[in-house]
Amino acid sequence: MSLLTAPGQATQTLQWTKKDLLGLRTLSADEIRLILQTAESFREISLRPIKKVPTLRGKTVVNLFFEPSTRTRISFELAAKRLSADIVNIATHSSSLSKGETILDTVHNLEALKVDILVIRHAAAGVPALIASQATSAVINAGDGAHEHPTQALLDLFTIQEKKGRIDGLNVSIIGDIAHSRVARSDIWGLTKLGARVTVCGPPTLMPTQIEQLGVKVTYRVDEAIRDADVLMLLRIQHERQETRLVPSLREYRLRYGIDRDRLAAHAKPDVLIMHPGPVNRGVELDSAVADGPFSVILDQVTNGLAVRMAALYLVSGAPKVDEAEA
Amino acid sequence: MSLLTAPGQATQTLQWTKKDLLGLRTLSADEIRLILQTAESFREISLRPIKKVPTLRGKTVVNLFFEPSTRTRISFELAAKRLSADIVNIATHSSSLSKGETILDTVHNLEALKVDILVIRHAAAGVPALIASQATSAVINAGDGAHEHPTQALLDLFTIQEKKGRIDGLNVSIIGDIAHSRVARSDIWGLTKLGARVTVCGPPTLMPTQIEQLGVKVTYRVDEAIRDADVLMLLRIQHERQETRLVPSLREYRLRYGIDRDRLAAHAKPDVLIMHPGPVNRGVELDSAVADGPFSVILDQVTNGLAVRMAALYLVSGAPKVDEAEA
Amino acid sequence: MSLLTAPGQATQTLQWTKKDLLGLRTLSADEIRLILQTAESFREISLRPIKKVPTLRGKTVVNLFFEPSTRTRISFELAAKRLSADIVNIATHSSSLSKGETILDTVHNLEALKVDILVIRHAAAGVPALIASQATSAVINAGDGAHEHPTQALLDLFTIQEKKGRIDGLNVSIIGDIAHSRVARSDIWGLTKLGARVTVCGPPTLMPTQIEQLGVKVTYRVDEAIRDADVLMLLRIQHERQETRLVPSLREYRLRYGIDRDRLAAHAKPDVLIMHPGPVNRGVELDSAVADGPFSVILDQVTNGLAVRMAALYLVSGAPKVDEAEA
Repeated sequence: MSLLTAPGQATQTLQWTKKDLLGLRTLSADEIRLILQTAESFREISLRPIKKVPTLRGKTVVNLFFEPSTRTRISFELAAKRLSADIVNIATHSSSLSKGETILDTVHNLEALKVDILVIRHAAAGVPALIASQATSAVINAGDGAHEHPTQALLDLFTIQEKKGRIDGLNVSIIGDIAHSRVARSDIWGLTKLGARVTVCGPPTLMPTQIEQLGVKVTYRVDEAIRDADVLMLLRIQHERQETRLVPSLREYRLRYGIDRDRLAAHAKPDVLIMHPGPVNRGVELDSAVADGPFSVILDQVTNGLAVRMAALYLVSGAPKVDEAEA
Repeated sequence: MSLLTAPGQATQTLQWTKKDLLGLRTLSADEIRLILQTAESFREISLRPIKKVPTLRGKTVVNLFFEPSTRTRISFELAAKRLSADIVNIATHSSSLSKGETILDTVHNLEALKVDILVIRHAAAGVPALIASQATSAVINAGDGAHEHPTQALLDLFTIQEKKGRIDGLNVSIIGDIAHSRVARSDIWGLTKLGARVTVCGPPTLMPTQIEQLGVKVTYRVDEAIRDADVLMLLRIQHERQETRLVPSLREYRLRYGIDRDRLAAHAKPDVLIMHPGPVNRGVELDSAVADGPFSVILDQVTNGLAVRMAALYLVSGAPKVDEAEA
Repeated sequence: MSLLTAPGQATQTLQWTKKDLLGLRTLSADEIRLILQTAESFREISLRPIKKVPTLRGKTVVNLFFEPSTRTRISFELAAKRLSADIVNIATHSSSLSKGETILDTVHNLEALKVDILVIRHAAAGVPALIASQATSAVINAGDGAHEHPTQALLDLFTIQEKKGRIDGLNVSIIGDIAHSRVARSDIWGLTKLGARVTVCGPPTLMPTQIEQLGVKVTYRVDEAIRDADVLMLLRIQHERQETRLVPSLREYRLRYGIDRDRLAAHAKPDVLIMHPGPVNRGVELDSAVADGPFSVILDQVTNGLAVRMAALYLVSGAPKVDEAEA
């Protein structure tokens, strides 16, 4: 745990004071470290024979998903259940901002049922923040449009820390559809705040203008992104991008940006980490030999996601400290 | 709690003896009071830091919804979870009475799984009663066609009692699509049994013939319904009514029957309560300024719905008294 | 319980050693007996006022259903909840084997979330076995294509044992669409292993070639299948078989193979058991008078299914013995 503490920073002084977890842009480096430390203390619960603690007993968590996502839903659901919270799943299909008023009515109704935490996914950027501003319950952003996906970035940071022992000073390259990726944005905020040097790489059509203003280096050549990288984060290419002609073809994408064994052998550091938020398009952004190979930590990311989400639920809940609750 | 007790009626003598909760028409005033009193004792559970009691631990509740309803489903689901019951959700789409036999097979199968309570919503009037007559499990009607929606009416009664201190002697006006509203029917039964004077108001095309036989006054003029009312209950106008030409247009409906600030200022008592079963069509039957205004108790209704459903689940379960179970 | 023990077989020596429950073909008679004995000890839990034991507290069960099935899903869900396990439902619609790779990714992701048991239903034969070979979690086959449905056969065996006191030496006839029935295949394996004599009967178009190799007798005349049978197991006729012209018409099927009161009166033993895996096509393979009549044990099958699934979850979980866990 000491590795997660910045030099001269005593763990005891860190305290969570925010109502919500909306994104990494608005978190301080210390707040990020607090979440990672808390996740570390929760990680071993899922390795016990009895994977359950009473920490959030009698708290109510709502998975309010306006956009389908089985993986993230299950991860939050299991995180809540292992903390003994009650959880209710709501999958709804109101996807446009024009329904903003109705969304707020939904939220006010849930609040009237005395729920504690709203875990919200929505196709439109900003909806979790809008809801958080109107709700007294805590809000966790589970992904909003192309804006932020904070728990994904936190599990990425946790995994890098776990595997490399540090984040500060590492070279991290993010490769893929940077423009449409909430994962990329959250990762860039988190990595740069914790002292990593971030390079982004992808087709020019999928690269946001002025991305350099976030403090990252841009390259369009994947070999350059691989060289010197301690960590390669691949992003999923959405098939619909191809339909909108932002990507010429998946085959072409693979040739130019896909990561296979040869490309790694030719350019990568010998101890590079391969990361991906899943699900992987095997044979497009990542070959199976690499996704399932010795450098891949993709499944560790999933395991750590559970711990990070337990930490997020716990911190925003304002529940008493773990040690007390477990007693 | 004493306010809920009729004069000369000792609380202790009330006891729940019915297997099911199918509607308010077949309940006595004392039975209604018993549910409201029980709800009062459950209400504070949802205000605790640990919102959970073991009252129904080891009991199985099934939400058997033949008609979709996120709000009512969630309210029953949370009510069950806060009482520590196990709950299973079944959403199915058999909507016609011609499938009656299949519905009974479904119910017999659930009973063979030793469930305790079936919470049933169906688009056809009478299905919960049909099931209750064939089932040994307790049945709670969560809304059947245009027939009854007893827990909605009970939460309405609870809210009026809470805000006004009494129901007996109050003037309550129900405004909207009376003909197709199970909420209106259940509310009329409950309100008149507890001594309120009920006026119904709406377009003639949406007014059932011979509704006066239920002991209510009818008016087609909304200003008259507002005048002298202690409580205004608005009903949701279903968009499909417009398609069937029972309502000329939503704009016209609003002009004639919609409640806005001006109409209230001109005609309403200064301490009128505004109620709505939700979800509100903002700008149709109710303006946002009124729905979110100082007279509105719409969100209190939602909160009280949870307590009423906890009471209903508890009473039909035949579980031991709360005090014992909580010990 | 002694009835379930083979002569000279001490109960204490039986132990569950398999990781998974994939089918009855690969189980020994002793392993089948062990499951039935364990189910017997779980059966009474669902008859208690508090239907819950802490046996699997802190274990995670996933209902991973690639094919819809409300009944089997609910049975496993309640079995898990009554053992205090956490359960997550995933209903997905990937039905072709060409997506095998994606299914394995799904499974690996679930395993990274540290789940304990995967309950899997899939339209393609062999998918649960494929998953089991790649997963460290325990896998229970909840029905795969026309291959096996082991918990259904186990509940059939349990019910026969309960009602007849033995399985060894009984005559059991299975009537219906033998070719497409995973239930028939699992029942044939289980019944013959426990010493019953099995006859299969159905239209020639729905009879697999070389079915005799499984050790069963074949007849195409239903009266012959009824005569001397201690147990009649009816199978559901799928309406799509009619569309593919494997069955001339449902009316014709009923005339030739349907079981009604007259046919039973004319040919059946006076203490015959009528079984059906449900849901029954009333008036096709089985008349209502028989399905709901005195010989029918169809709802007992459902009740016993719960006990059998509790036993299956318990045995594959590797949890400590019931007696210890319940203490």
